[in-house]
Amino acid sequence: MLIEILDIVGIFVFALSGGTRAVEQRLDLFGVVFLAFVAANSGGVFRDVMIGAVPPAAFASWHDLAISLAAGLVCFFSYQTIRRLAAPVVLFDAIGLGLFAVVGARKALEAGLNPLMAAVLGMLTAIGGGIARDVLTARTPMVLQREIYALAAFAGACLVTFGGYVAIPPWVTAPLGAAFAMLLRLVAVRQSWNLPKASPD
Amino acid sequence: MLIEILDIVGIFVFALSGGTRAVEQRLDLFGVVFLAFVAANSGGVFRDVMIGAVPPAAFASWHDLAISLAAGLVCFFSYQTIRRLAAPVVLFDAIGLGLFAVVGARKALEAGLNPLMAAVLGMLTAIGGGIARDVLTARTPMVLQREIYALAAFAGACLVTFGGYVAIPPWVTAPLGAAFAMLLRLVAVRQSWNLPKASPD
Amino acid sequence: MLIEILDIVGIFVFALSGGTRAVEQRLDLFGVVFLAFVAANSGGVFRDVMIGAVPPAAFASWHDLAISLAAGLVCFFSYQTIRRLAAPVVLFDAIGLGLFAVVGARKALEAGLNPLMAAVLGMLTAIGGGIARDVLTARTPMVLQREIYALAAFAGACLVTFGGYVAIPPWVTAPLGAAFAMLLRLVAVRQSWNLPKASPD
Repeated sequence: MLIEILDIVGIFVFALSGGTRAVEQRLDLFGVVFLAFVAANSGGVFRDVMIGAVPPAAFASWHDLAISLAAGLVCFFSYQTIRRLAAPVVLFDAIGLGLFAVVGARKALEAGLNPLMAAVLGMLTAIGGGIARDVLTARTPMVLQREIYALAAFAGACLVTFGGYVAIPPWVTAPLGAAFAMLLRLVAVRQSWNLPKASPD
Repeated sequence: MLIEILDIVGIFVFALSGGTRAVEQRLDLFGVVFLAFVAANSGGVFRDVMIGAVPPAAFASWHDLAISLAAGLVCFFSYQTIRRLAAPVVLFDAIGLGLFAVVGARKALEAGLNPLMAAVLGMLTAIGGGIARDVLTARTPMVLQREIYALAAFAGACLVTFGGYVAIPPWVTAPLGAAFAMLLRLVAVRQSWNLPKASPD
Repeated sequence: MLIEILDIVGIFVFALSGGTRAVEQRLDLFGVVFLAFVAANSGGVFRDVMIGAVPPAAFASWHDLAISLAAGLVCFFSYQTIRRLAAPVVLFDAIGLGLFAVVGARKALEAGLNPLMAAVLGMLTAIGGGIARDVLTARTPMVLQREIYALAAFAGACLVTFGGYVAIPPWVTAPLGAAFAMLLRLVAVRQSWNLPKASPD
């Protein structure tokens, strides 16, 4: 029950990130809803295609579409409000990040991937939507440029996929992994942590 | 028979949209043919991957490649002629839109998707090629920015996928849906209909 | 054994092309490794999805990730060295091109595609990584704009997929096709061969 609520929250907040970008790019109403759906579901669709779970969850039921539609409409009609809520949006986005990473990693494990690649696929589940959103608005994905985002998802996912080795059961590692990814992300935001960059010069 | 001719027309015209863009972007001969193939087939490839119908139709036979190659060569050697034919190209593009949406929606229905998501996948079949074309030329997809295009495809697809509820047989709803999408698109072009945009300011 | 070494070389060099691009775009350490992995593996992932071979090789084992990680770190810490090695990188890239095209074409043939479309999929295996790298850095793919690159891969792949018709066994056509693609590419680079472009004016 809690998981389902958090999942809805995660999809909704990821969809908000697509919807607000769409408004900023002056897309039309269809574009706003479309980008909301893409930002919320591309990561999961990619994961499902990789493990052969078709049709992907995003198309198997209308739930994710309905949540994305709601988020898109909120962005379209209340863009200023969403902007003012930047702080809670960062919080919920971190929750979505942790949840998507853990759920993605577990599905990949169940599909038979080894723990390392399952964690990679969990991370891609969490960052895929943001990448698709950025590519569709002709930008180099944010997640490749700054902040600790993907690595937080990866760390949480690893906790889940390697937890079995130290005999910790999934019902412990899953919430632990999600919480760890979320906290790592929030601390990184607050401390303005960034990964190093190489200089081409 | 009529369906097959219309299908060839649809692929050819969608391929033209990729080929002309490629010429405008000063791609080379390979780039022109490649973008023609991508614009004509990405929507169908995406749909087939989503419903697990692999290899996708575009790769299962050489027909779509041959049609795309022909369209690409026409763009390469007769770009000015295609430009002058803007009006018929809009007409044929609307035919392709309706046809792709309906065929895509029916395949999605047969694959077991619910009527709403089948209509969404039909719409994505129709708009996917244009999106891929725009992303490959580093633009935000046109379909997200203006005009009534995706919604026309969605409306036609819905007619097909929900037609069963009011006991209309597929051989009625399919041509009806395609014609409806096509007409809606053409009226929207003539009347310069646009969806509203939100203002980020 | 030789094949396996060449395969590792191919993945490593393709990953270098992603890693150097990432450094030039001033991506962070994660972005460099990510783009290295994408440039080395997107072509193969696309092919595997098209023929239903899931999970794709890139996710089924950790080998490709490890090679990509190594290449990414080399780019990150020794960008200047890689730049100075432009000539050997072109050579190894040509080896990777030929190898990816041939391996991709054979896998597509074995999956039941006809010889022409198997050669197309072999070519896409070879050029897909570069396309994904360019799209993720918001550029129109290089391969669509100049030089003989995709066609060299296609020629080598055709040699493999049509070789059966003239009764040449695969253990002859495979190395022959890879060598042919590689040589064609290297001659094209040296002679500055380009395909013609159409003029939109």
